[in-house]
Amino acid sequence: MWKRLLTTAVSIPKTQKAVLLDTHGGPLRYSDIPVPTPKPNELLINIKYSGVCHTDLHAWKGDWPLDTKLPLVGGHEGAGVVVAMGANVKGWKVGDFAGVKWLNGSCMSCEFCQHGDESSCAHADLSGYTHDGSFQQYATADAVQAARIPPGTDLAKVAPVLCAGITVYKALKTANLSAGQWVCISGAGGGLGSLAIQYAAAMGYRVVAIDGGAEKGEFCKSLGAEVYVDFTTTKDIVLAVKDATNGGPHGVINVSVSQQAMSQSCAYVRSTGTVVLVGLPAGAQVIAPVFDTVVRSISIRGSYVGNRADTAEAIDFFSRGLIKSPIKIAPLSDLPKIYEAMEKGEIIGRYVVDTSK
Amino acid sequence: MWKRLLTTAVSIPKTQKAVLLDTHGGPLRYSDIPVPTPKPNELLINIKYSGVCHTDLHAWKGDWPLDTKLPLVGGHEGAGVVVAMGANVKGWKVGDFAGVKWLNGSCMSCEFCQHGDESSCAHADLSGYTHDGSFQQYATADAVQAARIPPGTDLAKVAPVLCAGITVYKALKTANLSAGQWVCISGAGGGLGSLAIQYAAAMGYRVVAIDGGAEKGEFCKSLGAEVYVDFTTTKDIVLAVKDATNGGPHGVINVSVSQQAMSQSCAYVRSTGTVVLVGLPAGAQVIAPVFDTVVRSISIRGSYVGNRADTAEAIDFFSRGLIKSPIKIAPLSDLPKIYEAMEKGEIIGRYVVDTSK
Amino acid sequence: MWKRLLTTAVSIPKTQKAVLLDTHGGPLRYSDIPVPTPKPNELLINIKYSGVCHTDLHAWKGDWPLDTKLPLVGGHEGAGVVVAMGANVKGWKVGDFAGVKWLNGSCMSCEFCQHGDESSCAHADLSGYTHDGSFQQYATADAVQAARIPPGTDLAKVAPVLCAGITVYKALKTANLSAGQWVCISGAGGGLGSLAIQYAAAMGYRVVAIDGGAEKGEFCKSLGAEVYVDFTTTKDIVLAVKDATNGGPHGVINVSVSQQAMSQSCAYVRSTGTVVLVGLPAGAQVIAPVFDTVVRSISIRGSYVGNRADTAEAIDFFSRGLIKSPIKIAPLSDLPKIYEAMEKGEIIGRYVVDTSK
Amino acid sequence: MWKRLLTTAVSIPKTQKAVLLDTHGGPLRYSDIPVPTPKPNELLINIKYSGVCHTDLHAWKGDWPLDTKLPLVGGHEGAGVVVAMGANVKGWKVGDFAGVKWLNGSCMSCEFCQHGDESSCAHADLSGYTHDGSFQQYATADAVQAARIPPGTDLAKVAPVLCAGITVYKALKTANLSAGQWVCISGAGGGLGSLAIQYAAAMGYRVVAIDGGAEKGEFCKSLGAEVYVDFTTTKDIVLAVKDATNGGPHGVINVSVSQQAMSQSCAYVRSTGTVVLVGLPAGAQVIAPVFDTVVRSISIRGSYVGNRADTAEAIDFFSRGLIKSPIKIAPLSDLPKIYEAMEKGEIIGRYVVDTSK
Repeated sequence: MWKRLLTTAVSIPKTQKAVLLDTHGGPLRYSDIPVPTPKPNELLINIKYSGVCHTDLHAWKGDWPLDTKLPLVGGHEGAGVVVAMGANVKGWKVGDFAGVKWLNGSCMSCEFCQHGDESSCAHADLSGYTHDGSFQQYATADAVQAARIPPGTDLAKVAPVLCAGITVYKALKTANLSAGQWVCISGAGGGLGSLAIQYAAAMGYRVVAIDGGAEKGEFCKSLGAEVYVDFTTTKDIVLAVKDATNGGPHGVINVSVSQQAMSQSCAYVRSTGTVVLVGLPAGAQVIAPVFDTVVRSISIRGSYVGNRADTAEAIDFFSRGLIKSPIKIAPLSDLPKIYEAMEKGEIIGRYVVDTSK
Repeated sequence: MWKRLLTTAVSIPKTQKAVLLDTHGGPLRYSDIPVPTPKPNELLINIKYSGVCHTDLHAWKGDWPLDTKLPLVGGHEGAGVVVAMGANVKGWKVGDFAGVKWLNGSCMSCEFCQHGDESSCAHADLSGYTHDGSFQQYATADAVQAARIPPGTDLAKVAPVLCAGITVYKALKTANLSAGQWVCISGAGGGLGSLAIQYAAAMGYRVVAIDGGAEKGEFCKSLGAEVYVDFTTTKDIVLAVKDATNGGPHGVINVSVSQQAMSQSCAYVRSTGTVVLVGLPAGAQVIAPVFDTVVRSISIRGSYVGNRADTAEAIDFFSRGLIKSPIKIAPLSDLPKIYEAMEKGEIIGRYVVDTSK
Repeated sequence: MWKRLLTTAVSIPKTQKAVLLDTHGGPLRYSDIPVPTPKPNELLINIKYSGVCHTDLHAWKGDWPLDTKLPLVGGHEGAGVVVAMGANVKGWKVGDFAGVKWLNGSCMSCEFCQHGDESSCAHADLSGYTHDGSFQQYATADAVQAARIPPGTDLAKVAPVLCAGITVYKALKTANLSAGQWVCISGAGGGLGSLAIQYAAAMGYRVVAIDGGAEKGEFCKSLGAEVYVDFTTTKDIVLAVKDATNGGPHGVINVSVSQQAMSQSCAYVRSTGTVVLVGLPAGAQVIAPVFDTVVRSISIRGSYVGNRADTAEAIDFFSRGLIKSPIKIAPLSDLPKIYEAMEKGEIIGRYVVDTSK
Repeated sequence: MWKRLLTTAVSIPKTQKAVLLDTHGGPLRYSDIPVPTPKPNELLINIKYSGVCHTDLHAWKGDWPLDTKLPLVGGHEGAGVVVAMGANVKGWKVGDFAGVKWLNGSCMSCEFCQHGDESSCAHADLSGYTHDGSFQQYATADAVQAARIPPGTDLAKVAPVLCAGITVYKALKTANLSAGQWVCISGAGGGLGSLAIQYAAAMGYRVVAIDGGAEKGEFCKSLGAEVYVDFTTTKDIVLAVKDATNGGPHGVINVSVSQQAMSQSCAYVRSTGTVVLVGLPAGAQVIAPVFDTVVRSISIRGSYVGNRADTAEAIDFFSRGLIKSPIKIAPLSDLPKIYEAMEKGEIIGRYVVDTSK
């Protein structure tokens, strides 16, 4: 049961447990580090749980064309409780539930911030990348960007919503669909995909799920997919998807990280439809034939992360019980092992670490 | 001065002059052929002038993945006068000015036609491709799709508007810009590009033109381009375009047929901006890095041809005097020579053939 | 079970049963009249069932500022089978299921038709108003506008979808909502309202229903309303709706015909939200304070009837089983009694007449 | 010529000149008051010039249903130079040109702020209304909301852009028009109207201006109006506007404060068009017939003030020289006389006060 903590009752320690990274690809240390001090515009959040995302793997490897800070505390799906805040913070109270998400803060005054595209801000500060993230017990976050989590929410289950959930919700909005239209989720059985199916269903879309194997098929259908296409047994995926949707889905969400799957999605998407790119395989390219793209009036759109409104909306769907978050909880100290399993592609669903262990 | 022709005064000959194509890549014949009879839903239009478009070259070569009829009368930028019509035609009169455009007719009842995306109709009938086009003195066109041209219009000058004009106007709409934003026209000095500059200016956009050589630069600026980037003398085009637009244009219209230029446009477009593909180089692919496309939230969109509303709007801009159509008039019998010059890339602006010669 | 009728097997009688109106407000005659002959662009549809709508009452009374034909066969929710068609009809076969809806035909070439706003066409032809409608056994309809009904559909249940369903679906689209937002249905327990609740739920919206009495409350909740506000027992409706939706619904659909209810909806709608007007009480005005409308950035939008795409989409939701159509079937010969009951406001749900009786 | 002031060179006085209001409708005092101290998130701006707006009259009279602070320094079109700033301000430097606009600050974290609708924020702080405004030499403004004015800008001429300009620009965006469509400006000869004509022309719209008298007609045409309708000499305004626009303008911007003019605009707007309300006559109501609003699918939308993006865009049009701001400069000490003239409706164009006099 959620209780508002009294400011006076909150005792903040000087040091805390965290998982640290000193060099790209180097060992992940489960260590004691100092608790950070919030800036005037920041919250200090006692992280209870944090989801683990593929992006964390890229931050660790350093294989994206964007520098991280080093040493680095990763993690950007942190859910916890506000324990302190800077002098200039408005609208928050100690004891509020709050989330640390990928976009930690931005300038709020450039052209992109003005349009709600804070993720394109040149001064975007990224949790677990350029700003120490949620794989620690106490993290800081800009109060304007921190996610508001309703009282009573299960903090373990909401954690993956803070990146995976918001990301797929934003991607679905980017596909610009109407209720009743078909959307294909390519890579539907993974952490992002399983959330995408549920958001799509809650938005009134009809879902075709693509992934490999019968087990993932059952899983996808249990989450709301109307059709499942198993790439391990389907000869002609393009044809199968087109047939199942009477001419192709109106939108495609590529959460798979396969370059070939992206190209296929440009082939099976319905004419005038939208292919959304979400997954970020290092070094990959999207390749589509110009003739077909033009003559069929296809859109290929990159979708990054949600803004403040997307965040609130994605959490609201979760709070209303429409999104199940099928997580496995592990101690923070096990994080190195989770990275290993993730890299081998052995994970179904989403891992969440408990920072108290 | 335009005059309404009396129905009784119109005498329609049995045969006419046309330029015909019997085999892909084979000779173009300037010959006498029968005047066609309009179906119940069709107009018979006495074509006075017809623009010549790159698409005509592809129809001749047969190098697109879409079959043409054979033998074929090409041409889809025909402007003329209605001389007869089928029994079921509504809203037209003999003597009206009418245009033959790329989309000659469609089913009007499929999902795409219902949404005004008639060019994606599975039964789309294409002038100069699957339906004999405007390189003849008398052509037929579905009355619902035929372009309405206001009385008094210069039929030679309006001809290129019927494909090139509508196409670039549609592409500019597809870029989804607001007045005051930057648009880059890649391939700005050609037939499509020179119209694109003017439509963009009339829509309140700021134009960066890319093409090669000082002469094309003068030409582009005279049409309304604010900045000209000469690809023959600019070392780093991406940088030059970004610098000129304070971070990249919000939209790019690729009327150039260079695959490399398309890829560059994905690099210099502003974050959250839209790259529009229009030109159709045979066999080309659009290639963009996934990471950059996603993180910068770029859209890459194919734009084909305008619908009925786009047609009316594009002609209206022309009729209001906002679009100059810098044409060169030649006899229809010279068409084979024009194809030749076009293939060598020797043409600035747009050729229009006079069907009476 | 649906069967394709053979053309040769269809025998069309010379006369048929119909309900006719000779003067506004005069008696409704259940009589024998000739079966009409379809024009080249028309279908002849053997109407099996027809819904009865408030608009039919206005056509009978003649109290709208738009003339009807006289004598008139009313009705514009007719579902039946194609038995013949004009020479110029494309894409239909004898035996297809087809619907007669309010917009019977339009010019397809004016500015409004070009934009898919056929209902604003100056030459719009209206079933049961300017064109004999569906209260007869055989009706004609323009093939481009006639509704396509999938084989196997229950023709009695789909009938009200053809006007009431399409109308509320269009109104919901006009409210321009996102999944997860609140919509208020004012007049939720009637024929239009009961469909509106279900479409809204299928589109992912959260529904507040307003109507009078506990019975209607149960009915609304059974259809998917999350909250019910009973205007017979609620002191401050504006406050109640605002409270239930944490600040007001993002959209309001006024299917009630009360002028006061419309004004209230401008007061309880959320800031930046949209009030949609649908119901057409004769002589009514929408009245809203300028200050509040401006400072709260409210939109008040009239929504008339759906276009071809809206029709197909609304029927698709029904065909997928997401919309229950709670009808009462009566013989066509009882139509005069139904008009009477309707005028007294005694009807819950929707009446459908069986033209065979 | 603009120069960056050195922080050390700026000497801020303890007291300053201001025009103060102690009671609604009471005398306006030109007095010495203390210079305010900026909060951590605020700029202190040395106001050089301030526009005078009708809203200032309402703030003085207190006739709007929204309380002002008292005593009050009015004004919300202030242009000046940053002389100091709070500790938490990002992205500004002493010496930057900055503007005080109507929306002084907001919470940035509520649902409305998240969507860029800061003017609907329950904690919106309004310059010259709930926050001392620009009729003083030194004013404070939230750094996130303060308008950025490019170096070199004429501070007197840009002043009216900061409210009047942004407001009409936002209203034009709210009308949701495409380039080439008609917009009617009702009340075109006044401060807002004269700016609206110019923004509309710069956005590619065709302008019908309505106002009274031949002098205003000349003025409107000189600013870009294509048609002028003089309400003092036109018998049937609805007919005249419809005729001039071939069926009615696609949008209408009501900057007039006449309730009758608003109702007329609902009658002459084109079917499917949008009537935008901007002017705020105390106690007025917008009244439109339900039948016509629905059957013609009209939208009536309140438009309040622009957000951060609208502000930047509106100033950019001005900076590019597309918007002339026809002002009359008067000393701040003359403000009481200007209020008087304004109330009598004697003003053409816009007054700007020089705070140094």
